[in-house]
Amino acid sequence: MRQFNGGVCSAKGFRAAGAACGIKEGSDKKDMALIVSEVPCSAAAVYTQNKVKGAPIIVTKENISDGKAQAIICNSGNANTCAPNGIELAKKTCEIVAKAADISPKDVIVASTGVIGQEMSIEPFENGIPKMAKVLTRDGGQSVAEAMMTTDTVPKTGGVQFEIGGAVCNLGGAAKGSGMINPNMATMLCFMTTDAAITPEMLQKALSEVVKSSFNQICIDGDTSTNDTVAVMASGLAGNPVIDKEGEDFDTFCEALHMLSVHFAKNLAADGEGATKLIECNVKGAPDVEIARAVSKSVIASDLLKAAIFGSDANWGRVLCAIGNAEGEFNADNIDVTMSSKTGSVFVCEGSMHKEFSEDLATGILSQKEITIDVDLHQGDAEATAWGCDLTYDYVKINGDYRS
Amino acid sequence: MRQFNGGVCSAKGFRAAGAACGIKEGSDKKDMALIVSEVPCSAAAVYTQNKVKGAPIIVTKENISDGKAQAIICNSGNANTCAPNGIELAKKTCEIVAKAADISPKDVIVASTGVIGQEMSIEPFENGIPKMAKVLTRDGGQSVAEAMMTTDTVPKTGGVQFEIGGAVCNLGGAAKGSGMINPNMATMLCFMTTDAAITPEMLQKALSEVVKSSFNQICIDGDTSTNDTVAVMASGLAGNPVIDKEGEDFDTFCEALHMLSVHFAKNLAADGEGATKLIECNVKGAPDVEIARAVSKSVIASDLLKAAIFGSDANWGRVLCAIGNAEGEFNADNIDVTMSSKTGSVFVCEGSMHKEFSEDLATGILSQKEITIDVDLHQGDAEATAWGCDLTYDYVKINGDYRS
Repeated sequence: MRQFNGGVCSAKGFRAAGAACGIKEGSDKKDMALIVSEVPCSAAAVYTQNKVKGAPIIVTKENISDGKAQAIICNSGNANTCAPNGIELAKKTCEIVAKAADISPKDVIVASTGVIGQEMSIEPFENGIPKMAKVLTRDGGQSVAEAMMTTDTVPKTGGVQFEIGGAVCNLGGAAKGSGMINPNMATMLCFMTTDAAITPEMLQKALSEVVKSSFNQICIDGDTSTNDTVAVMASGLAGNPVIDKEGEDFDTFCEALHMLSVHFAKNLAADGEGATKLIECNVKGAPDVEIARAVSKSVIASDLLKAAIFGSDANWGRVLCAIGNAEGEFNADNIDVTMSSKTGSVFVCEGSMHKEFSEDLATGILSQKEITIDVDLHQGDAEATAWGCDLTYDYVKINGDYRS
Repeated sequence: MRQFNGGVCSAKGFRAAGAACGIKEGSDKKDMALIVSEVPCSAAAVYTQNKVKGAPIIVTKENISDGKAQAIICNSGNANTCAPNGIELAKKTCEIVAKAADISPKDVIVASTGVIGQEMSIEPFENGIPKMAKVLTRDGGQSVAEAMMTTDTVPKTGGVQFEIGGAVCNLGGAAKGSGMINPNMATMLCFMTTDAAITPEMLQKALSEVVKSSFNQICIDGDTSTNDTVAVMASGLAGNPVIDKEGEDFDTFCEALHMLSVHFAKNLAADGEGATKLIECNVKGAPDVEIARAVSKSVIASDLLKAAIFGSDANWGRVLCAIGNAEGEFNADNIDVTMSSKTGSVFVCEGSMHKEFSEDLATGILSQKEITIDVDLHQGDAEATAWGCDLTYDYVKINGDYRS
């Protein structure tokens, strides 16, 4: 199994395009992405838990309720959420894709990200989709990632290659998140495609499990968007024996899906609004994995800790405070904390008490761009990791500046 | 019932002092507060839910387990948390107070706020407390509030006068919160004193109920400190018939306690770290009060909404997003949102959809210092309110600057 610089077209059977279709009047930013598979795919998705849901999520859920999909259409610039005729518009979009790609409208996954509460026009879709359908290529992965961006500072792509039953399989994807258009929700979107043959049931099972230790373990600002969607399509063209039950092949697929999901999760966290640093928190010694996950996530989600990391301050008291605020039954009396980066590490707290350390050394370590916080709860064998970013002046600027 | 500009000495029987005792070497800031009652009092307290608890909390819990207390000692500058010999030191502090005030060490409430993980010296207590015990006065309320401050920008005092069984009763208090010493936890502390006669059981019952709709409904940054404490002492010197059961008198007392608690809750939120604005969110039409509380708190706790209010941006999409993230089973399809301040109001969202409004008018309204967000969920009769503050550059500065 190896990670490579792939994209949504790395797996056999997928072609894609990204283009500027004028979702926002006067803007020439790429704002629409279309991914189409040569063959019907197994499909699975997970969505935001927010009770306010974007119209595209409602339509996508219905469309892939049969476990099948053949195309993904995604626009940036307008979230199509809390907006008049949202569902009607999302359905109409699927019909336009279906006509242009000669597939069924029920096999289209639709997603939107951008301003919420603003009516969206169907025109950019009517004009753009047929044109895009004519220029779909095997090189469209980068373009898709660019078209999904809002104020993301870098397009996010990735791929993993693995072997199942002697057949080489590919898994690739594109993601966006943490950016804003006008001041708005920071929607997280990730589309992954694979040529592995897997049933819809097992694909959904794999995805639902993998998100727990990847996308659900990142936090930029604690606000869960109304439009978050992670979707996977599997074309089956790799020629492996179909994965239709648990076992070695399923585990291999899950491992690949996990590897790519963690890749995207880390990239999203590092590109958090205004972020200058990626924070990774590894928790071990937890009584169970739920507590390990809750503790690691509580640490990277703490505004106080995030601000301290921005200031390169080894303020371990905030780590302890955040740990103590995590949900679940556990003991907080014997916690060790170490902070590190590529330049070294400092053991700052032992047995929940202060441990002498060099502040100069700590400042140097925390001035790097990737910071790791290792926590040992000393009460079990469970482990988990979470990823976040620092809280900076730019976060306030990006989200506090009045819409222009 | 009337609110007045009282303090911890407004009720009969209480004397107090605040002084600079050198908790932090070289500092001449008032850092110790002592409150003593002439007579043993009914006592009740509520504490942080953080699993990492300051040593003073452990000692206070034990001391008032019999429902009695006669003095409160509080220091700022060091939280006595995750620090060696913390419990021993907190107990020793109680003994010093007991000797100086001629009471039992088991009748002392002890609290600390400030840096965590730093060993605290007993010397400032040994030197300071006997001196303070000699200068206790009925005018000490302001001094107590000042000594509790960390980076609070204003001392916080208040009082309520009410009548029970023909006797005039007083309730006063001091609070601190949202400030920082060095970059650290923002501990919330509130001490209230009353001359109403009430049993310890009913006092605890009143306090536990009142905090749900006052202190538990504020949020500065989502990090629950390790040292939060709200304590009430009742001297009984007002001469009212002792409140020993539920009924009209108990309700009157609860109303007074609620009035003062909300006064402090609002003051703490308004003085949040770096805050320029107080945000009040009123939720109505909720299926039950727990959901009303969760929804209102989710709104004022959203970093995105807090940053938008800082930028005077009527970004109601963030209000909807925060509502949708609240815990509990409710419907998010028919929500109305109005934003207002003393200059006017704008109806920004109706039936969970955008409603046309003047952006200029909205900007003017949101430029004020006290912003109200009214939410109607249209699915029941329950209501609740929560208080928070905006997220500003100064929040990042206060918490991100390296410890000097």
